[in-house]
Amino acid sequence: MIIREIHVTPVAFRDPPLLNAAGVHEPWALRTIVEVVTDEGLTGLGETYGDLGHLGKVRECAQALVGLDVHAMNAMYARVAATVGDVVTDLHGLTGVATKEKSVDRVFAAFEVACLDIRGKAAGVPVVDLLGGRARDAVEYSAYLFYKWAGHPGDEPDRFGTALDPAGIVEQAALLIKEYGFTSIKLKGGVHPPDEEIAAIKALHEAFPGVPLRLDPNAAWTVATSIRVGRELDGMLQYLEDPTPDISGMAEVAASVPMPLATNMCVVTPGHLPPAIAAGAIGVLLLDHHYWGGLVRSSHVASLCETFGLSLSMHSNSHLGISLAAMTHLAAATPNLTFACDTHTPWQNGQDVIAPGALRFVDGAVPVPTAPGLGVELDRDALARMHEQYERCGIVARDDTTYMQRFDPTFSATRPRW
Amino acid sequence: MIIREIHVTPVAFRDPPLLNAAGVHEPWALRTIVEVVTDEGLTGLGETYGDLGHLGKVRECAQALVGLDVHAMNAMYARVAATVGDVVTDLHGLTGVATKEKSVDRVFAAFEVACLDIRGKAAGVPVVDLLGGRARDAVEYSAYLFYKWAGHPGDEPDRFGTALDPAGIVEQAALLIKEYGFTSIKLKGGVHPPDEEIAAIKALHEAFPGVPLRLDPNAAWTVATSIRVGRELDGMLQYLEDPTPDISGMAEVAASVPMPLATNMCVVTPGHLPPAIAAGAIGVLLLDHHYWGGLVRSSHVASLCETFGLSLSMHSNSHLGISLAAMTHLAAATPNLTFACDTHTPWQNGQDVIAPGALRFVDGAVPVPTAPGLGVELDRDALARMHEQYERCGIVARDDTTYMQRFDPTFSATRPRW
Ligand SMILES: [Mg+2]
Ligand SMILES: [Mg+2]
Repeated sequence: MIIREIHVTPVAFRDPPLLNAAGVHEPWALRTIVEVVTDEGLTGLGETYGDLGHLGKVRECAQALVGLDVHAMNAMYARVAATVGDVVTDLHGLTGVATKEKSVDRVFAAFEVACLDIRGKAAGVPVVDLLGGRARDAVEYSAYLFYKWAGHPGDEPDRFGTALDPAGIVEQAALLIKEYGFTSIKLKGGVHPPDEEIAAIKALHEAFPGVPLRLDPNAAWTVATSIRVGRELDGMLQYLEDPTPDISGMAEVAASVPMPLATNMCVVTPGHLPPAIAAGAIGVLLLDHHYWGGLVRSSHVASLCETFGLSLSMHSNSHLGISLAAMTHLAAATPNLTFACDTHTPWQNGQDVIAPGALRFVDGAVPVPTAPGLGVELDRDALARMHEQYERCGIVARDDTTYMQRFDPTFSATRPRW
Repeated sequence: MIIREIHVTPVAFRDPPLLNAAGVHEPWALRTIVEVVTDEGLTGLGETYGDLGHLGKVRECAQALVGLDVHAMNAMYARVAATVGDVVTDLHGLTGVATKEKSVDRVFAAFEVACLDIRGKAAGVPVVDLLGGRARDAVEYSAYLFYKWAGHPGDEPDRFGTALDPAGIVEQAALLIKEYGFTSIKLKGGVHPPDEEIAAIKALHEAFPGVPLRLDPNAAWTVATSIRVGRELDGMLQYLEDPTPDISGMAEVAASVPMPLATNMCVVTPGHLPPAIAAGAIGVLLLDHHYWGGLVRSSHVASLCETFGLSLSMHSNSHLGISLAAMTHLAAATPNLTFACDTHTPWQNGQDVIAPGALRFVDGAVPVPTAPGLGVELDRDALARMHEQYERCGIVARDDTTYMQRFDPTFSATRPRW
């Protein structure tokens, strides 16, 4: 099954004004859709970041990979590495340190997923079966809460409403739980002074007793603040995610707080694992196949975590259904991925490039697709429409900080902030 | 592709009197051949140890796995673990510490390989393509030298001759290199006092200048002896394999000798990796899919080694062609497996359960089979003949020590010996 052509299509979809330590989500979120077509006419889908520098490398690699067999992952990885070269395409910083290795893994992942989709279709099995088979029939996701404005400045309020205090956060949680049935909750923090976010977690703890809670300030706090918050939230957090920057800072915090620390910022490429493990910096790694080099490489990292006694959860950026399918297959095939995964799906608000019906939430979990491959198909009209949106939206790279500064010129994304 | 039946056939083949720290190889080596048959009539092959305790567990699992899909590796592993239970079936000690986890991995591996064989056949691709595709077109093996008697006591001398001193070892190396084209040499040590083995390495170094050499005394030496030998052989060994028992002993030696230490004894199951890495005990891990839980789990371990800066080679016990094919596919798909692998193939002396022609040595390397699956097929006459040999040979578990004591009642396998 030789790759005959690869189509690369950037798309944009409406995104609510979700606040985070870097600023606020712009009105459009970008993604890149990859379609790999074989000489036998089978098509596989991949989804990745839409930022221009990354998109350029994905396009270059799409040319470089034509002619390879869809099984030739080692050769494909070598070609991607050669094509990406020393360019670091990862800029926005919410998924942590940007490195050359991570840039290669980010570009490779979309093609790898598409090739697994093709191999699954050819073999008549879902992708989960190419990754070891189901360890579970449905994958749990968490309610991913964000502080947010009512709507983008100048726009109508969106249907999710304002959430700028504990009451707004509890209301948002209630809405997402009502619509999706989530049984875990994650709050994106790093937006307000720590005491306000402590109050939000306490309000969630009271409103949803027994529901596992997490807080992720994206490294907005000093070590001292992190320790103070961690101790204050004893008994209320399943894990505390990236309270402070860097492996050394995380290790200091980990030694002094009662809950495990999780990360998608200080350990984001294989080279970070040995020092983080040696320092005892983390208890939970948030896998993300988009930057861990695809599904198979992510499953290797999952094995490593099991060997070293690290727990696993899953990280999410704004994404569409191809990624949700890929994440679900990976999580379903990974026995030790026992925490509910993150997803931005609710914030998509129904927008997607895939035909409806393939993925659904039942009690906060996505049943693993059983159709061959990823189990999702492109909605070509939607793809065309979302590509047009990309062309028109005027955004070519995510920049939460500059967008925030348009409304608050004093805003600084420098971390730690508190 | 549902597993309809699994055939388990123990076989025996003639084995020369190869000396090692545990004693001497008996006249017959045992293996177990596993044939997995699907509802569609596809057959996959696996090969594993033949010792009776292990064979019993393989047979039990063969029953327990019927009805599973050939992709359902997580489910298969769980069933094997439940069936093996707390029984430790690994006894002879030359592959290191025996644990419950390792016993499960040892049983699982044969079924996993057979299922990959089936999946490759169904997809029309060689197994290497299910493991990431070729990182190399042929896999290098080393000339695996053994001290040996002329023949088994009471038998005619075999064609390999006597090798009990440096001259005999050099002669054996010349024979294997002439017949197979090997470009690396490994000497199984732990048989004679260390100074005699130092002399053998020096003789090989002189006779084959530039050819990488390794010495493996199977933990026969104390830490002090290991350090003395290591220093004495500075500049002559590519790596020194298992000079002394245990991670702590290896770490002491590693800190004091100029060459990397390799192991297939102190790190033989995932749980050994964290302490060995923390202690700096080894520089090279000898993978062996037979006890690392099959090909995919071995590739996970290979990734972990790359992440932690450990190099990779491959371990071998006496084996037949199914295992050689599996080893070759795994090594070919593992970019960081850069040392020539071990194999006992020459000592098989042509005996095999597979039809001839699928595997050959060219300049010491086995070209990766290109036929679907493992690329080897059973020779059913040979299988029947070798099973008959198993029934008649009177050996049900490898026991080099007792066999040695028949000829030297004072022999003790207690290690460290020197
Ligand atoms: Mg995070
Ligand atoms: Mg050894």
